Amino acid sequence: MTVSTRVQDLLARMTLDEKVAQLVGFWLDQDGEVVAPLADEMATADGRSLADITRHGIGHFTRVYGTRPVDPAARAAWLVDEQRRLVRETRLGIPALVHEECLTGLAAWKAATFPTPLAWGASFDAALVEEMATSIGESMRRLGVHQGLAPVLDVVRDPRWGRVDECISEDPYLVGTVGTAYVRGLQAAGVHATLKHFLGYSASQAGRNHAPVHAGPREIADVFLPPFEMALRDGGAKSVMNSYTEIDGVPVASSPELLTDLLRGELGFEGVVVADYFAVAFLEKTHALAADRGEAAALALAAGIDVELPSGDAYLEPLIEKVRAGEVPESLVDRAVLRVLAQKEELGLLDAEAFDADAPATIDLDTPRHRDIARRLAEESVVLLANDGALPLAPGARVAVIGPNADRAEALQGCYSFANHVLAHHPGTPIGVEMPTVREALAGAFEVEYALGCEVEGTDRSGFAEAEAAASAADVAVVVVGDQAGLFGRGTVGEGNDAESLDLPGVQRELVERLVATGTPVVMVLLTGRPYALDWALGAGGPAAVVQAFFPGEEGGSALARILSGAVSPSGRLPVSLPRSAGAQPYGYLHPPLAGPSGVTSTDSTPVRPFGFGLSYASFEYSEFACSVAESITARVTVTNTSDVAGVEVVQLYGHDVAASITRPVAQLLGFARVPLDAGESRVVTFDAPLSRFAFHDRSMERVVEAGAAEVWIGSDAATDAIPRVTIELPQRAITAADRRLVEVTLSEAR
Amino acid sequence: MTVSTRVQDLLARMTLDEKVAQLVGFWLDQDGEVVAPLADEMATADGRSLADITRHGIGHFTRVYGTRPVDPAARAAWLVDEQRRLVRETRLGIPALVHEECLTGLAAWKAATFPTPLAWGASFDAALVEEMATSIGESMRRLGVHQGLAPVLDVVRDPRWGRVDECISEDPYLVGTVGTAYVRGLQAAGVHATLKHFLGYSASQAGRNHAPVHAGPREIADVFLPPFEMALRDGGAKSVMNSYTEIDGVPVASSPELLTDLLRGELGFEGVVVADYFAVAFLEKTHALAADRGEAAALALAAGIDVELPSGDAYLEPLIEKVRAGEVPESLVDRAVLRVLAQKEELGLLDAEAFDADAPATIDLDTPRHRDIARRLAEESVVLLANDGALPLAPGARVAVIGPNADRAEALQGCYSFANHVLAHHPGTPIGVEMPTVREALAGAFEVEYALGCEVEGTDRSGFAEAEAAASAADVAVVVVGDQAGLFGRGTVGEGNDAESLDLPGVQRELVERLVATGTPVVMVLLTGRPYALDWALGAGGPAAVVQAFFPGEEGGSALARILSGAVSPSGRLPVSLPRSAGAQPYGYLHPPLAGPSGVTSTDSTPVRPFGFGLSYASFEYSEFACSVAESITARVTVTNTSDVAGVEVVQLYGHDVAASITRPVAQLLGFARVPLDAGESRVVTFDAPLSRFAFHDRSMERVVEAGAAEVWIGSDAATDAIPRVTIELPQRAITAADRRLVEVTLSEAR
Repeated sequence: MTVSTRVQDLLARMTLDEKVAQLVGFWLDQDGEVVAPLADEMATADGRSLADITRHGIGHFTRVYGTRPVDPAARAAWLVDEQRRLVRETRLGIPALVHEECLTGLAAWKAATFPTPLAWGASFDAALVEEMATSIGESMRRLGVHQGLAPVLDVVRDPRWGRVDECISEDPYLVGTVGTAYVRGLQAAGVHATLKHFLGYSASQAGRNHAPVHAGPREIADVFLPPFEMALRDGGAKSVMNSYTEIDGVPVASSPELLTDLLRGELGFEGVVVADYFAVAFLEKTHALAADRGEAAALALAAGIDVELPSGDAYLEPLIEKVRAGEVPESLVDRAVLRVLAQKEELGLLDAEAFDADAPATIDLDTPRHRDIARRLAEESVVLLANDGALPLAPGARVAVIGPNADRAEALQGCYSFANHVLAHHPGTPIGVEMPTVREALAGAFEVEYALGCEVEGTDRSGFAEAEAAASAADVAVVVVGDQAGLFGRGTVGEGNDAESLDLPGVQRELVERLVATGTPVVMVLLTGRPYALDWALGAGGPAAVVQAFFPGEEGGSALARILSGAVSPSGRLPVSLPRSAGAQPYGYLHPPLAGPSGVTSTDSTPVRPFGFGLSYASFEYSEFACSVAESITARVTVTNTSDVAGVEVVQLYGHDVAASITRPVAQLLGFARVPLDAGESRVVTFDAPLSRFAFHDRSMERVVEAGAAEVWIGSDAATDAIPRVTIELPQRAITAADRRLVEVTLSEAR
Repeated sequence: MTVSTRVQDLLARMTLDEKVAQLVGFWLDQDGEVVAPLADEMATADGRSLADITRHGIGHFTRVYGTRPVDPAARAAWLVDEQRRLVRETRLGIPALVHEECLTGLAAWKAATFPTPLAWGASFDAALVEEMATSIGESMRRLGVHQGLAPVLDVVRDPRWGRVDECISEDPYLVGTVGTAYVRGLQAAGVHATLKHFLGYSASQAGRNHAPVHAGPREIADVFLPPFEMALRDGGAKSVMNSYTEIDGVPVASSPELLTDLLRGELGFEGVVVADYFAVAFLEKTHALAADRGEAAALALAAGIDVELPSGDAYLEPLIEKVRAGEVPESLVDRAVLRVLAQKEELGLLDAEAFDADAPATIDLDTPRHRDIARRLAEESVVLLANDGALPLAPGARVAVIGPNADRAEALQGCYSFANHVLAHHPGTPIGVEMPTVREALAGAFEVEYALGCEVEGTDRSGFAEAEAAASAADVAVVVVGDQAGLFGRGTVGEGNDAESLDLPGVQRELVERLVATGTPVVMVLLTGRPYALDWALGAGGPAAVVQAFFPGEEGGSALARILSGAVSPSGRLPVSLPRSAGAQPYGYLHPPLAGPSGVTSTDSTPVRPFGFGLSYASFEYSEFACSVAESITARVTVTNTSDVAGVEVVQLYGHDVAASITRPVAQLLGFARVPLDAGESRVVTFDAPLSRFAFHDRSMERVVEAGAAEVWIGSDAATDAIPRVTIELPQRAITAADRRLVEVTLSEAR
């Protein structure tokens, strides 16, 4: 890392108190509300004034906007004043770095709420996610926020885990591609992205949050690491957050092998590693590695965690004592301080004019541009799972709109949305942005009758009769079911809301079945944060159509109405397998032969619908598939819209290494392309994929492409070939850091 | 390995054909019956004569007794003739090594069937298991069998896995202690034990047979390896079988790191590694590592698999071609042949007089001694899970005996029993040994009415009414439910019978609930091969008593009758946690804090009943607990039978390393002792535990005991302290191969 003279001089002037002050955050507005794990137990509020708390300076301000509903412009003005005070009143005049959550949009009152990351994955549209992230970053810059705690690059491994909601996909390349786009977008606006959670978090045992990860070094390197590598090398991400979990007995927060040797040594990362909230203290409190906070600080600092968040705890007095006792070298403190100061310098915080400008008098965090992006991403992310012809709805149809998620704005939003993350603690406070529900949006296009039916949770069936009556009286019933996102026991999915069963929560399945029994065609719309076990709904006797939306955000209701009415043809594809049951987990499509159906187990591991699955109102055919290999792999196919309506096909290129020195997946997504096609149109899609798409860590843990046969094909999804496979011969090749990771896609003009 | 001159001379005289012939088995009596995974696809029967097949000699005869029902004495006579023919007619005159399955007793018609390994674990009685194994071994020797394919030392990690039936426990020390006793017992009779499955098999993803194992090197070394290490070092086991699975991408059958470097290099093993059936071919067929059988042979041989079982396939012509092409060095073939010949020499097979004696004219494989051992082990293994006073049954009670497992001998036996493994393919053939069912045994002590109620599987409820009537008319209803053991889709547990749900199969729970609703006290007896989710049965509104038996063998019905009648007080303890649900798996009691209940997940991971749990008709109290540490850990406690009936307490010593460099389990079984106590009696139990009981692989993968505090206590089970904990200070200590592994237990005289 090259450090400027200014930063080096600054460090040289600092006392130990001033140094550690730069290594911690301070969380304003805490009053016992739980918006982070164990925050009630871990909070350190002590009634001191902010000036006193920051008398030696402060590294970060934590969630200035995202802790309680505050007027954005007023808070921005306060923040500028506070930064000026830090510059003016602290000895070294270093302002605070302000970080905020921003996964589904900036977690601030009145800010735009975008679709949840599973929906980004379902869109297969990295460019649109980049656009979204830029619009988020611009809002953050206007508010004086410098760093966003997103994206989540954890690869989905078990749908029981509550945080699946925050993840993009079970495919590492899709996660990496879309996640890298998010990083580029956010950072293009001048806000530093934070990659989380480094590393392995999503494989926690039985999908239990924070539980141990059972994984060997090859799985870590080949499955969990690639998205981070892409977002660092291709996206240039500026910050990384540790994972709460342990891997094979070693808590990541205590691992210099992961946080320093791998992250900085091998991947060349030069930014700041921040602790996930309370993760330093957790080394004592939940992992039982340290006897006290000082030992926890020593372990985390040595491992490579530079900044303790959300507030200073271990990294203040306990760390100072360790340094004074000679048990922690001050050089380790200096190493972290240099990184923090370099980041502040890069962000312009050390410049004399940094806070010359006043905050804007009015701030719109939900502009027409935000809403347009939110709408397009929502539309692209909706997955049509089944349709016997009930969709699109007939013009003029009388529609019964039923279900616990039909008329609630909260049902459109993920667990890190401001509404579900923060406003849940402030009942009565309005969401602060327009957020038409599915009922409201459908009412704009159809004659609509509404009935609740039941709640998301609980066993109250008292609304069934009214719902059945409404369905019976209508031409079609749209029943909107699914999840409520929330945290730590509030809600059915989200951080801390892990699932023991993958059945729909409460009596929602029963409601749907009762409606189907009325004889009125039923369209089941799912607003969920995880894939559920839906085999009962996807066969004979189920609803006439099934539509899967992963929390689609503020324009989700409108987007669904446009899809149900046929104004837009659905084009989302499953970014995760639709599971068979909780008892079949973990399962992932990227499995070698023996995790799939086999003659040696009586259980059927086949998912109910595979990764990549999704229907359209249009239909598509493939022809003229060719694939060749030289310095890269070139695949070309013609895709034709054979229907009489416009649609978008997600062209999916898959590969399979026929025999290798380790086991390899039966199918692996090599590349993908969203291809819009009007009725009857064709396009030629060309993929130029680097050989590294077939790379893995071999017996010696060298990353290689092994010589030998590989099959390549276009799949309708991960399990269904759309065109006969082509066998290519891969050359032997060592894969280095310089190898290109992204697949280049070219679409011909439509003809 | 030191090899005799005789063996070296023999090798020097061998052609390549003769060498590879020693590296394969031949499976007689194959006619397409499936008693091994994919056997139908893999069988190589081709109509040739045995003399032709063995013209170059043969390494093993496979399952001479365990493939179909054959008269033991007649087959033994045939076998002696066949061995004499091999000596006489093959150029080198080397007889075959005869191996057989022997997990729940010798897998031969008319042989004694003992309790399944989960029952061995539940007995916590290694000495009795050793006695059992000796009696098994003596039967085998009489039949001319030299090697037994047992014990299974896989540590239970997921109750969904069908082969849990064949495992001893989820605690590696209990597995190692009991498994080592089995090895000692079998080998004391002159039969070589085979440790299986080396390594990691039981952690297959989602409990799916053969599916990938996700585990890091520390979990492998600290959890999966110790039982094998104990059985090799303390038990001197002569043979090892590979695991079918892959670990972190590497199929074990192709791993020189595991099968050679670890097994021979580190653990000092000098015996023969045999392939699990078809495992060599599976490197091509299911793992897709090899393009053909020759490559599979090359991989397996280089890894360290010496003998291909069940029959020659890859190790015959395909291997010969590889050697002739110079792609496999002949020295690798020689290495394996030397091991095989050394084993045959050690078994006396190369001695001139080996087959001088004729086979016995009559052979009793189920002597009174066998039956006495079977009865004692069955009695010791039954776990009383709940009892509101209904047990023991009142003398003279009118008992309704109900349920699909009440009157079937098959329900008493594990999946590797001859009845369930082989006779299932020969309907009408009698089991050939006395095997009183629970109904028959109870009829000897009570006035009994019987009703089937329902089958183990399926949804037929037509027998419910008769069962309810029988219950209503009785003083008490004993309902016997559970599993049917079998293989690959035949049955509900056993090899290949993995479970997606941990609910009792079929409508058995419903039957029990219907019987409870009659108001007659219900005693639910489980005959199962895995622990099921029984929360519904163990609380208010459940049966009056619940008795868990893991397939208890030929004397299991009688043992249960003696326990139900009060002649024997139950003394078994759960060798596995009683699971919450399939969706909560995997779970094990040996977990660090974060796999247990925590504030960061809304799910409850607490098992329904913990490892080590079990009730008694007696009651016990602990006093005067003391623990100190010097070169070993000495713990001493007084246990008193405070009731007015005799009973056996399983005293369980637990420990917890308070803070370590890696995460450590919240509780770990250090040692155990079965303590028989008459009413009012006391004994002092003294444990002398080596420091290595607290050992683990540290950050550098060195096996150490780390300095620092550890808690030690006596537990009623893994979750319940029976007496306040004592904190000891562990010294820092490197743990070497020479360190003692077994805990010494001393019981004072009763007073």
